Amino acid sequence: MSYFSSIPNIAFEGPGSDNPLAFHHYDASRKLLGKTMAEHLRLAVCYWHTFVWPGSDVFGAGTFERPWQQSGDPMQKAREKADAAFDFFTRLGTPFYTFHDTDVAPEGNSLAEYRNNFAAMVDVLEKKQADTGVKLLWGTANVFSNPRYAAGAATNPQPEVFAYAATQVRHAMEATHRLGGANYVLWGGREGYDTLLNTDLKRERAQLGRFFQMVVEHKHKLGFKGAILIEPKPQEPTKHQYDYDTATVYGFLKEFGLENEVKTNLEANHATLAGHSFQHEVATSIALGLFGSIDANRGDPQNGWDTDQFPNSVEEMTLVTYEILKAGGFTTGGFNFDTKVRRQSHAAEDLFHGHIGAIDTLALGLERAVKMVEKDTLAELKAKRYAGWDADLGTKILSGGFTLASLADEALSRDLHPKHASGHQELLENIVNRYIYG
Amino acid sequence: MSYFSSIPNIAFEGPGSDNPLAFHHYDASRKLLGKTMAEHLRLAVCYWHTFVWPGSDVFGAGTFERPWQQSGDPMQKAREKADAAFDFFTRLGTPFYTFHDTDVAPEGNSLAEYRNNFAAMVDVLEKKQADTGVKLLWGTANVFSNPRYAAGAATNPQPEVFAYAATQVRHAMEATHRLGGANYVLWGGREGYDTLLNTDLKRERAQLGRFFQMVVEHKHKLGFKGAILIEPKPQEPTKHQYDYDTATVYGFLKEFGLENEVKTNLEANHATLAGHSFQHEVATSIALGLFGSIDANRGDPQNGWDTDQFPNSVEEMTLVTYEILKAGGFTTGGFNFDTKVRRQSHAAEDLFHGHIGAIDTLALGLERAVKMVEKDTLAELKAKRYAGWDADLGTKILSGGFTLASLADEALSRDLHPKHASGHQELLENIVNRYIYG
Amino acid sequence: MSYFSSIPNIAFEGPGSDNPLAFHHYDASRKLLGKTMAEHLRLAVCYWHTFVWPGSDVFGAGTFERPWQQSGDPMQKAREKADAAFDFFTRLGTPFYTFHDTDVAPEGNSLAEYRNNFAAMVDVLEKKQADTGVKLLWGTANVFSNPRYAAGAATNPQPEVFAYAATQVRHAMEATHRLGGANYVLWGGREGYDTLLNTDLKRERAQLGRFFQMVVEHKHKLGFKGAILIEPKPQEPTKHQYDYDTATVYGFLKEFGLENEVKTNLEANHATLAGHSFQHEVATSIALGLFGSIDANRGDPQNGWDTDQFPNSVEEMTLVTYEILKAGGFTTGGFNFDTKVRRQSHAAEDLFHGHIGAIDTLALGLERAVKMVEKDTLAELKAKRYAGWDADLGTKILSGGFTLASLADEALSRDLHPKHASGHQELLENIVNRYIYG
Amino acid sequence: MSYFSSIPNIAFEGPGSDNPLAFHHYDASRKLLGKTMAEHLRLAVCYWHTFVWPGSDVFGAGTFERPWQQSGDPMQKAREKADAAFDFFTRLGTPFYTFHDTDVAPEGNSLAEYRNNFAAMVDVLEKKQADTGVKLLWGTANVFSNPRYAAGAATNPQPEVFAYAATQVRHAMEATHRLGGANYVLWGGREGYDTLLNTDLKRERAQLGRFFQMVVEHKHKLGFKGAILIEPKPQEPTKHQYDYDTATVYGFLKEFGLENEVKTNLEANHATLAGHSFQHEVATSIALGLFGSIDANRGDPQNGWDTDQFPNSVEEMTLVTYEILKAGGFTTGGFNFDTKVRRQSHAAEDLFHGHIGAIDTLALGLERAVKMVEKDTLAELKAKRYAGWDADLGTKILSGGFTLASLADEALSRDLHPKHASGHQELLENIVNRYIYG
Repeated sequence: MSYFSSIPNIAFEGPGSDNPLAFHHYDASRKLLGKTMAEHLRLAVCYWHTFVWPGSDVFGAGTFERPWQQSGDPMQKAREKADAAFDFFTRLGTPFYTFHDTDVAPEGNSLAEYRNNFAAMVDVLEKKQADTGVKLLWGTANVFSNPRYAAGAATNPQPEVFAYAATQVRHAMEATHRLGGANYVLWGGREGYDTLLNTDLKRERAQLGRFFQMVVEHKHKLGFKGAILIEPKPQEPTKHQYDYDTATVYGFLKEFGLENEVKTNLEANHATLAGHSFQHEVATSIALGLFGSIDANRGDPQNGWDTDQFPNSVEEMTLVTYEILKAGGFTTGGFNFDTKVRRQSHAAEDLFHGHIGAIDTLALGLERAVKMVEKDTLAELKAKRYAGWDADLGTKILSGGFTLASLADEALSRDLHPKHASGHQELLENIVNRYIYG
Repeated sequence: MSYFSSIPNIAFEGPGSDNPLAFHHYDASRKLLGKTMAEHLRLAVCYWHTFVWPGSDVFGAGTFERPWQQSGDPMQKAREKADAAFDFFTRLGTPFYTFHDTDVAPEGNSLAEYRNNFAAMVDVLEKKQADTGVKLLWGTANVFSNPRYAAGAATNPQPEVFAYAATQVRHAMEATHRLGGANYVLWGGREGYDTLLNTDLKRERAQLGRFFQMVVEHKHKLGFKGAILIEPKPQEPTKHQYDYDTATVYGFLKEFGLENEVKTNLEANHATLAGHSFQHEVATSIALGLFGSIDANRGDPQNGWDTDQFPNSVEEMTLVTYEILKAGGFTTGGFNFDTKVRRQSHAAEDLFHGHIGAIDTLALGLERAVKMVEKDTLAELKAKRYAGWDADLGTKILSGGFTLASLADEALSRDLHPKHASGHQELLENIVNRYIYG
Repeated sequence: MSYFSSIPNIAFEGPGSDNPLAFHHYDASRKLLGKTMAEHLRLAVCYWHTFVWPGSDVFGAGTFERPWQQSGDPMQKAREKADAAFDFFTRLGTPFYTFHDTDVAPEGNSLAEYRNNFAAMVDVLEKKQADTGVKLLWGTANVFSNPRYAAGAATNPQPEVFAYAATQVRHAMEATHRLGGANYVLWGGREGYDTLLNTDLKRERAQLGRFFQMVVEHKHKLGFKGAILIEPKPQEPTKHQYDYDTATVYGFLKEFGLENEVKTNLEANHATLAGHSFQHEVATSIALGLFGSIDANRGDPQNGWDTDQFPNSVEEMTLVTYEILKAGGFTTGGFNFDTKVRRQSHAAEDLFHGHIGAIDTLALGLERAVKMVEKDTLAELKAKRYAGWDADLGTKILSGGFTLASLADEALSRDLHPKHASGHQELLENIVNRYIYG
Repeated sequence: MSYFSSIPNIAFEGPGSDNPLAFHHYDASRKLLGKTMAEHLRLAVCYWHTFVWPGSDVFGAGTFERPWQQSGDPMQKAREKADAAFDFFTRLGTPFYTFHDTDVAPEGNSLAEYRNNFAAMVDVLEKKQADTGVKLLWGTANVFSNPRYAAGAATNPQPEVFAYAATQVRHAMEATHRLGGANYVLWGGREGYDTLLNTDLKRERAQLGRFFQMVVEHKHKLGFKGAILIEPKPQEPTKHQYDYDTATVYGFLKEFGLENEVKTNLEANHATLAGHSFQHEVATSIALGLFGSIDANRGDPQNGWDTDQFPNSVEEMTLVTYEILKAGGFTTGGFNFDTKVRRQSHAAEDLFHGHIGAIDTLALGLERAVKMVEKDTLAELKAKRYAGWDADLGTKILSGGFTLASLADEALSRDLHPKHASGHQELLENIVNRYIYG
């Protein structure tokens, strides 16, 4: 019998419903701006937090005690886990999922075992996808949990560890390709340092650059059409992670000639740990041409670690979704719930509450962002604010029509005396709130 | 009579002296690694905090009441300020100073007045430099304090403000050139945003890129041989500043083709506000080929704003100086004291105590860093740690000898099973402490 | 002619209106739970940010250039400022205001001048209150801006400074009493330290304790019926402020026997600077019996200083208002806008936009909090969660019916084996969002 | 054969030695101020990080693979662990150790099993203490790791969990008493909340207060002469922990009448997570009469979680030790190494490097603090700074000789006009550095 058998399929019942196991705002087939909500949001459930993590933290043991987490034959348990996962996806009605290689298959004690276990489980997943219609948003490889990766994967001081990681990534890429994944993600959990005292920054940078190049080359060899995505994070578990934030990733990609080959998978909680708002990271990745996909979660503003909570701020998601819509919406990307229920929330239904609330939050944000785009007051006011840059002086400056000296001469001869203009931030904030609450 | 007339010239008296108005560790002419301490450290006193700032903060009025800060004819007061500044430099015995255009000359009410005031004061400074032998480490322009810059200088929505800033920067560059300055610095205090709601990130990035290009072109036209330096800061006064940190600046320079033209001026307190250690920023700028100069100060680890305190941690400065020595030491750069006495420290001698303590801290850090370089245990252990990357597998990987697939094949066929090696962080930390306290 | 003459009186026009100079949700006379919105919220505009601050920050000069901020006879300017302030209050329609003594009257050059200036301006304010019906929510004394307070007021190392502060506080209390103020506030901006090296914590604590006792004694002597409120803040301008947060203030009050005499004035931005959510500080002050009044603003989650922005998160204010309603609502307190427009927002209408948006945010939060209280699902679920503490074992434990040993014996003899129960955090968060967006 | 058999007993070899497995500054029997270094520092090694933790973190599995961490009979493994621990203590030469009940004995599956396992292991420990001379600095109970404590121990919504925790604490107290422990510690890892939405602050506060009272009563019943210590921590694993910092604990103790019964066990990393310097927490606990013992470690200034690194800043420890010496030194307390080697540092000798470096750091800090106390310039300057409070006006104010009104009258009649005096912070910082580096 299914672990989730007491949970009905989650249906849209509208804002008036009091049923906690229903959507109140997410109506998958409702059309906005010519696309359904499902097409806009491209929702994915992650394997690791939702089916692998046992509810442990640094100070305590797991509280969840799911049946597939009990001891037993690893491959049998992996199959039970896949059963539970696809049962969950189906009841929840989300179209996509995401995984690490070692989430779905036992690591084994050698590369050969790893390969065989993983291959067997990819067969299982393929069949499950066919049976349920659930699709893979992205795959990835876990090259950070095993002790061999304690000092990094691509940036490890031992090239043998680089080779081990390359093997996992190759197989995870190929599995992603075979399963029709829309993207492949690279998160460098241990690609950073614990102390500068034993770290050669330049060398490790070169290692990581070569690794990314090999991944991109392999993508083309495979004929994989999805995007390669780097997921920035500033720190944790390492003291400092090389993919600190979007702007840092951009410089890295430029150095290794990859800025047109790789995009970013942005996570809300990683943005805030890096000292940025989530909207900032999204807007920056769009401005740099790097926008790819989203790990939709939230951090706790008072806690300095990755709490991976379910997003529940419509105010925040409205602004983020507005940025995304303005940039044309997702292409290969989507909103992946890289989220975990709190350690106390060990009941089966808590997994549903977490995802339902998050999905309704995204739906509410989408609705409001659509209104913002349909009558785009912010864009109008922005255009007015920068109008001078579309007029004579501005275009001449930007097109290289002045040297520093000639521009200074011009300023002096015209006796320029520009006055500051109001940025009207409070007015703009009120306008946004009227979209949200009007 | 001089404001500082009660203060003697500060002399080196050695560690045994109890005289607070003497150096205990900084012996300017002492040779280490073939250079004098003075040549290694290239110490500079800044004009703004030390002679311009009145001791005010957001919650209170100025406490300093220096004679040259009283009301009076602005040009007359500017001359008195220059007298006091060079008197201070001379008594302290520091070889360099640094300034913003508007620190040394009144802004005036028009560009013409600005130009004339500044030109007159550059004459004064030139004479003072000749009389005292004090040299200019770098000049810069203040394009952030006047209300016209409230929304930015180069990134202002009004191109007229860009032009105004260009005029100041042109004159500040030319003054720096004429005064024999070793560098020219760009700090974009308002080049960022207060809210994304009224900000066009892409447009402002293009504006800033063009501005930097114009500066570099002008440098070459002038024949200025010094370095152009960007000073990263993550925020304050803006919510977000575009020159967030070194890694961000690197990506920016790459985009605009300036990575070989511009270097960084790194500040300790800006590093920590960006979520990095000071050593991290220095090591990163070296790894990226961007190391230029240092604003030596410290922040308060518990306060989230720029406190600009005098450096007093020998432990921190030893590691920073070790990085710098390993990279070959300063060329055009130096240690500039972008530091201010606390608002309560209004007495004339407090200005000396602050600088003396900082200078002795840098001297102590230098002494210890020299020992670390002379018998470079860290480098030996690092070489051993990464030895595999200089052997067959490592060099073949880095030189492009493998694809992802061929490397995975190799790993499988060799049944690789690398074990994690200890990073020995605690041992390394003990070694550093033995250099410091041994 | 009034500075605000182009601004109409702000009226409630409902959510459908597009008029930025109208309320969309705040309908002062609308009744909820038996009280009008105006009675629930008790809105106040502050004098200092709105009429005194010139739009300066640490890095730049004032941008506002209000007429009453120009140079001129100080008392004449103070009267013009009062005219503008009451004109603003009237147009905005807020029932209360708040001030520091030195906001409304020039400090003068001696205590006698101070007293006379202030007395004259209190006459002016009294007349304005009578003319407009605007009332005083609270008064306070500025004992932190003048250089004499650089090292603190009550905690100053010089008792003469304590005496100076006592004089200001006495006059500010008496003015507050005479003007019918509902509360008197103490914010210890400089009551803390910049460095422990020159600070005697115990001594300064005794000074501050005695000061608060004198204030409470004077309140009773005056017959002032309002509340004495301490405003916690963790730091800024000092490195550490003694009134760090509510829990710290509680311990302080207990030590000096003042826990039944003094309450707290809580500020959102101070809560977050102290590492707490705003809701936490409100809930804690209620749990400790210290809840008094609110400085309604918000900080920037990415900036480490007091930004004092206008509140615009309905999500945050709903939870805060729910706590307040559950505790019985305000008695003497209210929501004071200790908020400032951004430095770029120098236009007269920006002051209105800021306040209007904030007021609508509070009104929306109130509406939703009222729904939460009317059908209080959270309280029901909480009661169920703690039910065991109302049953036998729980009541016996809390009433002292067990020693540690007898309870352990009981646990062993009953072979207790309690299982963890889900905290259902995600469900609860969804319930709150249904109140907000349902 | 011992796991540590390759490690010699660690001896004092002096600053000149290059042996990493020797003390360079800690000379246990060296006398300073009439006490040996060992008597001053009262060093303790902790059981949990050093012998229980397997080198795992949230993102990865254990890297340590100690023999006693392998699978096997739990009691047998517990005995092997005790063998290793006491072997380690002996080789290192530290006089004290610390433990949680479940560090030393298997929890078992019932309270009866718990009690029996623990009792058997206490016998083992007692014998080991007698054999080696190692003593117990403090014991404690782990009432936070088991899933039953997910929602707290004393503050759990189920009173049965309170009873379970009471049983553990009773047995841990009695074991501590029997083993001659100098203190008993309470750290409330889960005594806080994850969300306010399901939390009754007032109720949980009452539960915790009663728990502490029961502990104090039991101490007296036992005749235990050691101190009861609360260990403040602001957060992690919970979002908010009730024992946030020393000032918060003080208010709590006052409410429950325990301020003379309980002291604090302060941890450096907890202080910084709470937004304080370590010195601040120590100085505050001394000022409040709560100073007890120290968990000597350090956090990473850039990471927002408890990293529990070994202390290695002599600069920080000098100031902390100065505060402690001024307060009379430790009585029952000591410096406990609540520290863990980095996850990469899996080698047996890394455990020694970590502790040796920390111990030398404390010894260096002690040496310098002793010099500061012997010629206490800071105290002299402080006395001078506050001299006014020992003169007429100050003593009259503090002794209640003035009302607010009479003091204001006095100030006016004397036309007080106090000037700010310099706090000379930079001079004081230089003086401290001369003690450290002179």
